[in-house]
Amino acid sequence: MDYRLDDALPVLRRTPAVLRELLLDLSDSWTTATEGPDTWSPFDVVGHLLHGERSDWVPRVEHMLRHGDTVPFPPFDREAMLATSKGLDLRSLLDTFAALRAENVDRLVALGLTDADLARHGLHPEFGRVTMAQHLSTWVAHDLGHIAQVVRVMARQYTDAVGPWRVYLSIIRREGS
Amino acid sequence: MDYRLDDALPVLRRTPAVLRELLLDLSDSWTTATEGPDTWSPFDVVGHLLHGERSDWVPRVEHMLRHGDTVPFPPFDREAMLATSKGLDLRSLLDTFAALRAENVDRLVALGLTDADLARHGLHPEFGRVTMAQHLSTWVAHDLGHIAQVVRVMARQYTDAVGPWRVYLSIIRREGS
Repeated sequence: MDYRLDDALPVLRRTPAVLRELLLDLSDSWTTATEGPDTWSPFDVVGHLLHGERSDWVPRVEHMLRHGDTVPFPPFDREAMLATSKGLDLRSLLDTFAALRAENVDRLVALGLTDADLARHGLHPEFGRVTMAQHLSTWVAHDLGHIAQVVRVMARQYTDAVGPWRVYLSIIRREGS
Repeated sequence: MDYRLDDALPVLRRTPAVLRELLLDLSDSWTTATEGPDTWSPFDVVGHLLHGERSDWVPRVEHMLRHGDTVPFPPFDREAMLATSKGLDLRSLLDTFAALRAENVDRLVALGLTDADLARHGLHPEFGRVTMAQHLSTWVAHDLGHIAQVVRVMARQYTDAVGPWRVYLSIIRREGS
């Protein structure tokens, strides 16, 4: 499927509500659970998505429009939230994420990107030349990947509890990342 | 984490709303997309979950309370929805799933299961002796697995569109099932 704003924007707009329905007011036994040392909890994932709103998705779109492929994107610290989320509660992270996401999607719409803009290039610090459409597709897939991560972390808390059914539950069996 | 009704019920109650936020009124390009021949679309997954409400989760709890491990569970047809969802729209599947799920969680609560009940045995047609707690843990993990499947199917529609970012998107790279 090729990237089209019409397909992508509704998915981007829904992510905060999906995470709210999944996590808000759920007990800490789910929201701060992890898959082991140095893996993220649902709480960490929401903080990571929030940080992306501030530093990655729309800022990089604007960077690309301004600099094309002459200046690489500033690198994105994918673990910044481990510090910035400290002391905050999940409700406030979810609320802030929802507000920033709505604002960012509105900013993206306001840019009125054309097909020609989607074909523009930017310079990724690691990948080199990338297109606007690739960056924007990644925003969507990244959201979906982190929703999958949240439910996987939760499911794996029942790795032992499900007993023999484990063989049919690929979410528990499969190697995560 | 051991199975406790207090942990599990809130997750079970949320699944219909999570799927509604993800899918309701989204274009068919997402909701009927698949991962290839003989794989399920988000639409198929919702139909499968709905069928589980009718034939699997609470019916098997009641079967276990009635028969213990003397009579195996009737087998569950995991592809029944490919026929039963025909001609229905996603909104009506989501609505029916939400209604049946609420009813089933209420039925489970009304049973007032004790710790002793959670340790009771049932007879699975393939696994042999299983416990009530294993069956009920599986209900939760099964929900979460299918939410992960829905977002994975969606993300994979952008397998090509994300370009070089694919290497960081395990939801796209990883073998599904």
